[in-house]
Amino acid sequence: MSSWYEPIEPVNAVAVSTRIRLARNIKGIPFPSKMTLEQFDKVNNLVRDAMAQSDLPIAKRLKYISMENVPEIERFAMVERHIISKNFASNYQNRAIIISDDERICIMLGEEDHIRIQVLLEGLQFEKAYEIAETIDSILCNALDIAYDNRIGFLTECPTNLGTGLRASAMLHLPMLEDRGELRSLTESISKLGLTVRGMYGEGTKALASLYQISNQVTLGISEKNAIDNLKIITNQLIDREKEYRKQLNTLKIEDRCMRSYGILKNARILTSAELLSRASDILLGVSLGVVKCGIWPMKLIVEGQPYMLMKKVGEMPPDSRDIERATMIRNLL
Amino acid sequence: MSSWYEPIEPVNAVAVSTRIRLARNIKGIPFPSKMTLEQFDKVNNLVRDAMAQSDLPIAKRLKYISMENVPEIERFAMVERHIISKNFASNYQNRAIIISDDERICIMLGEEDHIRIQVLLEGLQFEKAYEIAETIDSILCNALDIAYDNRIGFLTECPTNLGTGLRASAMLHLPMLEDRGELRSLTESISKLGLTVRGMYGEGTKALASLYQISNQVTLGISEKNAIDNLKIITNQLIDREKEYRKQLNTLKIEDRCMRSYGILKNARILTSAELLSRASDILLGVSLGVVKCGIWPMKLIVEGQPYMLMKKVGEMPPDSRDIERATMIRNLL
Repeated sequence: MSSWYEPIEPVNAVAVSTRIRLARNIKGIPFPSKMTLEQFDKVNNLVRDAMAQSDLPIAKRLKYISMENVPEIERFAMVERHIISKNFASNYQNRAIIISDDERICIMLGEEDHIRIQVLLEGLQFEKAYEIAETIDSILCNALDIAYDNRIGFLTECPTNLGTGLRASAMLHLPMLEDRGELRSLTESISKLGLTVRGMYGEGTKALASLYQISNQVTLGISEKNAIDNLKIITNQLIDREKEYRKQLNTLKIEDRCMRSYGILKNARILTSAELLSRASDILLGVSLGVVKCGIWPMKLIVEGQPYMLMKKVGEMPPDSRDIERATMIRNLL
Repeated sequence: MSSWYEPIEPVNAVAVSTRIRLARNIKGIPFPSKMTLEQFDKVNNLVRDAMAQSDLPIAKRLKYISMENVPEIERFAMVERHIISKNFASNYQNRAIIISDDERICIMLGEEDHIRIQVLLEGLQFEKAYEIAETIDSILCNALDIAYDNRIGFLTECPTNLGTGLRASAMLHLPMLEDRGELRSLTESISKLGLTVRGMYGEGTKALASLYQISNQVTLGISEKNAIDNLKIITNQLIDREKEYRKQLNTLKIEDRCMRSYGILKNARILTSAELLSRASDILLGVSLGVVKCGIWPMKLIVEGQPYMLMKKVGEMPPDSRDIERATMIRNLL
């Protein structure tokens, strides 16, 4: 089964992926920061049984995996595939996940909350992602005594999640907004609307690969639908502006830039992670503009070229050796 | 017939080409700077007839061409192929050449001297080039009254050619000597030995494409054999040092550099002449080290990517348009 970064259908030229996450906790068990190892096991078993007892087809597609059985490299490779959080990959003792074959659905058990339902889809699919998350949520809410307060809503370990427990986000490819230096001011305006924009890869203002995540921050006193609608409006504005700038490009100059990056990835013998991100971003742009045909969705290059994803394939090794193996793998993929 | 820049056999890894030039003048006719148009015609006819009357196979291979019948773009394209001098391409009235199909032999009539015999071969072939030039010279010396002084030797318009009238040169690819910054001091030492080193393309100390021409300066009081032997010794020293440095290279790093340049040339949509020279130089190095296989001798890219060579194929156009056509042509060649 192919992952979110290997979409079967062509995806939106700007929105690379959509994520919905719901935070839930079981009544009568302390929040994870206060839990004993036995209580982690108890949560795991309760949720596993709840899913196993469901007759819904979606529940049958999910598999329970104890994180202690997942080797370190694969745990961090899962972080690189955006399936689990980095914190969860580090603190894996007595933790578990319930995950679909295609990894588009993953329930983390024992992360910051007892239950974190994540749905991650390619392209811009807020409704579909929320619908899937909501179906999973119903199964759990029906089977388990979920911590819920009539005035506040769902109770969570961190107050920033109280209420809906919903975090929705989209990963956007914004090379033109970035080139024009508009992202900083846009980010500031957006934060005033209760949304956050941050670079997906790299530090500082310039995100490597020009990939940015926009997400909602408000969970209290707002419905799930309203939260997602707000996010959708701003997301679409960003997408429209990025597309508008792309239309103004000199086709030949951008084709030159994108094809050069393609030529380099197809021929380099040494390739750092940072260079891969930057070159793959050009290819992503080129594919969306129809000036590059490369037979592979560039997000696959980005995800599979990450350090742990690479080491999962070729074995553990220091960064210098990885740069060589990365170049070989990318050449083979292209 | 393929030219010197399309060798059939693989050539020396450092020496790209070898050139022999002999300057000759006909007794009783003033030097070109003082000649009338009728005298140019007279020289043309005398030399043409001398070659036509020879029974040697080499003479049968040569063709007489009046430069007035050669369009401007082709004249300057011939300069770019190193067949004629720039001065000769500009001052073409009543001038002519006698040239072989493969352009390895070209006799300019009415350049700085009445007769300039040029033999241009791929790789390092001083003896063979001189042997061919000498055969042509014998034909002319037997048929014509060549200006010769028993004390001085051959008489030429410019005193720097008096004596042998011989200028021998080799075009060397010296990227490693250049990278190490040794060329300036080497050039100074070499000039003290009566030899000259100069960049083939571009201005200043760093030659584009790292191609340098080394040639003899002394023509008076020295035999042809001695002049060529001196040049050969120094040329081989430069070649050996360049090769020694190449052996010390990190294979993977140099393969990475060369393959990146190959990938860019194979995919760029806009390509300046300067960038072509620099990338083709990397490929030349890569081919000589066996780390690049490109199915084409890189000198062909360099020569055919020159402005007039390009315009000869695609028509006259401004530099910006040439950069686009150049990229297309290089992609097709690769």
